[in-house]
Amino acid sequence: MITETPLTASSALAAWQHLSAEERVSAFRSLSRDQREDLFIDLSSADQAELARTMPEHERRTYLRILAPDDVADLIQESPEEERDALVNLLDWASQREVRALLAYAEDDAGGLMNPRFARLRPDMTVDEAIAYLRLQARQMETVYYAYVVDSQQKLAGVISLRKLFASDGRARVSDVMRIEVVSVQAETDQEEVARMFSLHDLAAIPVVDEEGRIKGVVTLDDIVHVVQEEATEDIQKIGGMEALHGPYLDTRFFEMVKKRAGWLAALFLGEMLTATAMAHYEDEIAQAVVLAVFIPLIISSGGNSGSQASTLVVRAMALGELRLRDWWIVAWRELRSGLVLGAILASIGFSRIVVWHAVGGVYGEHYLLVGITIALSLVGVVLFGTVAGAMLPFILRRAGVDPATASAPFVATLVDVTGVVIYFTTASIVLRGTLL
Amino acid sequence: MITETPLTASSALAAWQHLSAEERVSAFRSLSRDQREDLFIDLSSADQAELARTMPEHERRTYLRILAPDDVADLIQESPEEERDALVNLLDWASQREVRALLAYAEDDAGGLMNPRFARLRPDMTVDEAIAYLRLQARQMETVYYAYVVDSQQKLAGVISLRKLFASDGRARVSDVMRIEVVSVQAETDQEEVARMFSLHDLAAIPVVDEEGRIKGVVTLDDIVHVVQEEATEDIQKIGGMEALHGPYLDTRFFEMVKKRAGWLAALFLGEMLTATAMAHYEDEIAQAVVLAVFIPLIISSGGNSGSQASTLVVRAMALGELRLRDWWIVAWRELRSGLVLGAILASIGFSRIVVWHAVGGVYGEHYLLVGITIALSLVGVVLFGTVAGAMLPFILRRAGVDPATASAPFVATLVDVTGVVIYFTTASIVLRGTLL
Repeated sequence: MITETPLTASSALAAWQHLSAEERVSAFRSLSRDQREDLFIDLSSADQAELARTMPEHERRTYLRILAPDDVADLIQESPEEERDALVNLLDWASQREVRALLAYAEDDAGGLMNPRFARLRPDMTVDEAIAYLRLQARQMETVYYAYVVDSQQKLAGVISLRKLFASDGRARVSDVMRIEVVSVQAETDQEEVARMFSLHDLAAIPVVDEEGRIKGVVTLDDIVHVVQEEATEDIQKIGGMEALHGPYLDTRFFEMVKKRAGWLAALFLGEMLTATAMAHYEDEIAQAVVLAVFIPLIISSGGNSGSQASTLVVRAMALGELRLRDWWIVAWRELRSGLVLGAILASIGFSRIVVWHAVGGVYGEHYLLVGITIALSLVGVVLFGTVAGAMLPFILRRAGVDPATASAPFVATLVDVTGVVIYFTTASIVLRGTLL
Repeated sequence: MITETPLTASSALAAWQHLSAEERVSAFRSLSRDQREDLFIDLSSADQAELARTMPEHERRTYLRILAPDDVADLIQESPEEERDALVNLLDWASQREVRALLAYAEDDAGGLMNPRFARLRPDMTVDEAIAYLRLQARQMETVYYAYVVDSQQKLAGVISLRKLFASDGRARVSDVMRIEVVSVQAETDQEEVARMFSLHDLAAIPVVDEEGRIKGVVTLDDIVHVVQEEATEDIQKIGGMEALHGPYLDTRFFEMVKKRAGWLAALFLGEMLTATAMAHYEDEIAQAVVLAVFIPLIISSGGNSGSQASTLVVRAMALGELRLRDWWIVAWRELRSGLVLGAILASIGFSRIVVWHAVGGVYGEHYLLVGITIALSLVGVVLFGTVAGAMLPFILRRAGVDPATASAPFVATLVDVTGVVIYFTTASIVLRGTLL
C-alpha cells in the first residue's frame, strides 16, 4: 500500500495514525533526507519518541538536534523514564541546560510549554539596528512573531510585533514604538488559563516571566492549539462518562481503555443500585398497579436527558470562562424556569399519549385520566429536578476543587434516576390513593 | 463597580462578558483613546458589532477602519441584515472591495476566514531586497509570519518564514531559500478541515488558492484557535443532547435556549415512549414477579452509560481525524471485546449484590439465585449491545451524511433503553420459566 505512489512528507504525515509501527519505520526510511526532517518536525511528541527509539544513536542525535528545546523536552517526556538521561546527553551542552530546565516544569504549565529561545531587543536600539540584530539571532529561534524588549537585568520592558517593527521608521527608537502594556504569564500558570489568555487577547505568543519580571521564555500559539484540542477532548471524554484517555483512540491499548471506562461504569452502577433499593420500597404499589412500572423508564430517562443538557451547557461555559462560581444564582434561576417550561412540554406530550392510546386501545383501565395526571405531574417534577441538579452540580464540584466536567451526562442521569423513582412513586401515591393504590 | 479602580483595556476585556450593555458602553467611554482601540480590536466580532451600533457614525467609521478586512467582514456578518450595506460604505474604496469579496464566502469556509492582505515576494529578489520590500508592505498587513512568493500571474511559487528569511544570507535569491512544497487550501475548504491541517502541519498560516493556484488570501492560526474552540463547543453541546447554541450561555436568550433544548428533549421523549410500549407486553410477567420491575432502571441505565462512553469516544476521534469511515470494523471488533469485558464486570457486581442482599435480608425469595443469573446475563447483553451500538451509531450517521456528534449520550441511551427492556424480559422469561414466571 505504501509503495504504490511515491511518498512525500505530507502524505506520510496524513497517513501516520493509520500505519502500524513497522509501516511507520519503512515509510520514514523511504523518504529523502529533507523530507524525513520535515516529517519528523511535524509529528506529535509521542510519535517522535516512538520513531527515535528505532534509530541508531548517531541518527537519533541528528534528529533531536533539529528540534527546538521545548519540543525536545516534550519528546523526552514521552520516552520511558530510564532512557531520558541518555536522550538529554545527546544534545550540545547549551541545549542540555535549556532542556533540563524545561523538564523541571510540569507538562501542563506555561513553563512546560514555553520555548526558552526568543527574539530579544534593547530599548535604546533604533528600528534599523533592531532588524539587523534580529537577523543575527534568527538562526537560533523557532519562530519570530514578536521581539521582546529587555533591560540590562533581563526584565521585560516592552514588546513589538515584527509587523510593527517593519512598519516603523528605521531611525525611531525601539522604546518609542514598542507596546509597554505586555500580557504575560508565570511559569506555574496552568495551560488552560494560558489558552484563555491567548483567545482573550488574540495574541500569537505570550512571554513567561518570573516574580521579578524577568523573561524566561515564550509560549507560542501553535502549542496552544494542541492544548485547546487536548483539553476539549478530555472534557468530552469526561462528559461521556469515563476517564480521559490521553492519546488517540486507536493508539490506546485495549486494557488501558477498558480500565478507564470500567471504573466510572462500576461507580455509576453502584449509584444506580440505589434505584433498586428505592423501588423495593414501592413493590406493593407496583403489585397493585402494574401499569405504573410500564412508565418508569420513560419518566426517569426524561430527567436524565434534561439534566445532561443542563450540565453539559454549564460545564462547557465554565471551561470557556463564560461562567464563574459567583454566577451560580443567575444560572439556577434561569434553569429553574427552563426546567418548568421543558417539563410542561414533555408533560403535555405524555398526557396526550395516554389519552390517545386509551381512546384507541383502552389499555389503561377506568382510571386512565388519573394515570395521565400522575405521569404529567411526575414529568414536570423530574425534568425540573434534573435541569436544576444538572446545572448546579458543576458549580458544586468546582467549589469542592473537582473538575466540573466530572458532572458527566451518565453521572447526572444516575443521580436523577434515583430521585426520579422517588418523585414518581410519591406523586402516584398521592394522585392514585383510593383508586388504583 | 466599574469606576472603583482605573480601567485598562485588559481589565475591561476580561470583565466584558459579565457586564450589561450599558456598563459596556460606559466602560468603553472611560478608557483613553489608545486603550479603546486596543480593547475594540480584542473584542469578539459579536461584541464589536454591538458596541459599534452605540457609536455616532464618524466614530464607527474610525473603529471599522482599524480592523483588518477579514475582521470587518466578521463584524458585518454579526450585524443586522439591513445595516450591513451602510457599514461597508463607511470603508475606503479598496477595503470595500475586499470586504464585499469576503462577505461572498460562507462564514465557516477557508474563504470566510482568510485575510486578503498578506506579505508577497518575487522569486528573483535577494533576501536583502525581500526584507526591505516587506518593510514597505508592513503597514497594510495584520500579521507577517510567512511571506508568499508569487510569480507574475499571482500563482503561488513558494513560501518562506520570516525566521528563515532573517537567518538566510542577504545576497541569496528568495527562490533558493524558499520552501516549494506549500500546504494550501481552497476558499471552499470547510473550517474544520482547515483546523486539522494547521494542527497536522504545525503552521502559523495557510494560504488560500484558487483552481489555477493563484493566491487569494491567508488564514492565520489565531482565527483557527477560535474555530477549534467553537467546533469543540458545538460538539460538546450536541453530545449533551441538544442543538448547538452558537453563542455564550449568558448571552443566549431564554426562549432561544429553551427551543434548542426542547426539540431534542421531545424527540428523545417520543423515542423513549417505545419503552412503555415494550413494557406493556411484559405486564403479565411483572404482575407475576414484581421483583423484576425493581431492577429495570439499573439494567437499562447500564446499557445507556456504556453506550454513551463508546459513542463519545468515537465521535471525538472522528472529529480529530483519528478515525475514518473505513475504520469501522476495527472499532466494532474492539468495542465488541470491550462490551463483553465491561458487561462481565458489571454482571459480577450485580450478581454479588443480589446474593449478599439476600443473605442479609432474604428479600428476593427462594429463587434468588435464578434472579441473580437473570440480572447478570441481562447486564452482559445490555452492556454489549450498548457498547457496540454506541460505537457504530456515529459511523452510520456519518455514512448518511449527518454530523456524528448527533449520536449524543441521551440519544444512545434512549436507543439502548428500548432494547434493554426487551433483552431483560427475554432473558427473564428463559431463565425464570417454570419458577417465578
